Amino acid sequence: MSGRAPVRYDYEKDPAAIYRQSFAIVRAEADLERIPAELHPAAIRLIHACGMPGVIADLAWSDGVAAKVAAALRGGAPVFTDVRMVAEGIIASRLPAQNPVRCLLNDPRTPDLAARLGTTRSAAAVDLWREELAGAVVVIGNAPTALFHLLERIGEGFPQPAAILGFPVGFVGAAESKEALIANPFAIPYLALRGRHGGSAMAAAALNALAGGVPEEAPR
Amino acid sequence: MSGRAPVRYDYEKDPAAIYRQSFAIVRAEADLERIPAELHPAAIRLIHACGMPGVIADLAWSDGVAAKVAAALRGGAPVFTDVRMVAEGIIASRLPAQNPVRCLLNDPRTPDLAARLGTTRSAAAVDLWREELAGAVVVIGNAPTALFHLLERIGEGFPQPAAILGFPVGFVGAAESKEALIANPFAIPYLALRGRHGGSAMAAAALNALAGGVPEEAPR
Repeated sequence: MSGRAPVRYDYEKDPAAIYRQSFAIVRAEADLERIPAELHPAAIRLIHACGMPGVIADLAWSDGVAAKVAAALRGGAPVFTDVRMVAEGIIASRLPAQNPVRCLLNDPRTPDLAARLGTTRSAAAVDLWREELAGAVVVIGNAPTALFHLLERIGEGFPQPAAILGFPVGFVGAAESKEALIANPFAIPYLALRGRHGGSAMAAAALNALAGGVPEEAPR
Repeated sequence: MSGRAPVRYDYEKDPAAIYRQSFAIVRAEADLERIPAELHPAAIRLIHACGMPGVIADLAWSDGVAAKVAAALRGGAPVFTDVRMVAEGIIASRLPAQNPVRCLLNDPRTPDLAARLGTTRSAAAVDLWREELAGAVVVIGNAPTALFHLLERIGEGFPQPAAILGFPVGFVGAAESKEALIANPFAIPYLALRGRHGGSAMAAAALNALAGGVPEEAPR
């Protein structure tokens, strides 16, 4: 069996200090020059979520997206996510109007709908957003199919969300779905990370930043 | 207002085909030579989770960790996670014994415990694992403090888990906590990603792979 003796590590235990040090390192290492000031919180939280200062070289946005998201949330807009992990990463206390955060992936209607449409459950769940989609904030952290399907449905007449945050990750369709968002012909405001990088943690980080900035940087 | 006209994108909609293509790209781009065969599923799922074939250069493991995790799970071991996002990323249907997946971060006892211990809630929640920790599988996807605290508690006499998967992400303590795990004096089996990379998606991916491989690669 293994040995057993007390071990002690020297590490920061104060949550406020951890956040401050962490965001200070991010600011020191990140090249924020290219990015408008109102998106600095998003850039900082994105780097914080993945540990890679260089990742924001792939950040893409439409003019004014930060203000659009903030206004929608202040107005009580719901937040739709493609997967539960994104919903779990959203800091509820940072949402300004107790905005509902909805993920319909595990809705009982979703599997049948996916089979009928011949697509993924993530994409099918988008059809269940319709009633509340007008002015909502959409956060996609995983499924390219959900993002493609949403854009197609909007083209067919689904209501327009206030903004779409596009962060699918991976090798099949992720980069392409984000390029489709960036090129969307509906003038829907967007924030997206080009290429293969992304994921639920980054998607949630982007929403958290647009909802409430980086308040953890302030000494308390 | 925006223009509205149907758009159609050419993208793969079949979930099985998406997985197959995705894992085929990962295998083509990943350098698996250094990694023992029983950890190839973990390496492949880790890359799939973050979109970065190079990430496995930082993978570290103890001999036999895959078999230890598989045996513990077959025996019904619970899975403990530091954050809800990891728990959400674990594919329940892949667990061999309907293993419970527990995250105590939001337990009502955790905030008081954190205040009393002078540490983060993530670390304090570890104290609530004690009764079921013997032989459990621990998956840390976010908090270095949780990993440090767990190792310290084991040194003080907490029961030993069957294995620890260490994937904290970020700039303050993440790399150090994983080095502490790799150097743990208790001979606890581990799988970890050195450096700043990690996160809940990768942590869940590692557990999913050790629990059930990469069955999505098989044509169906």
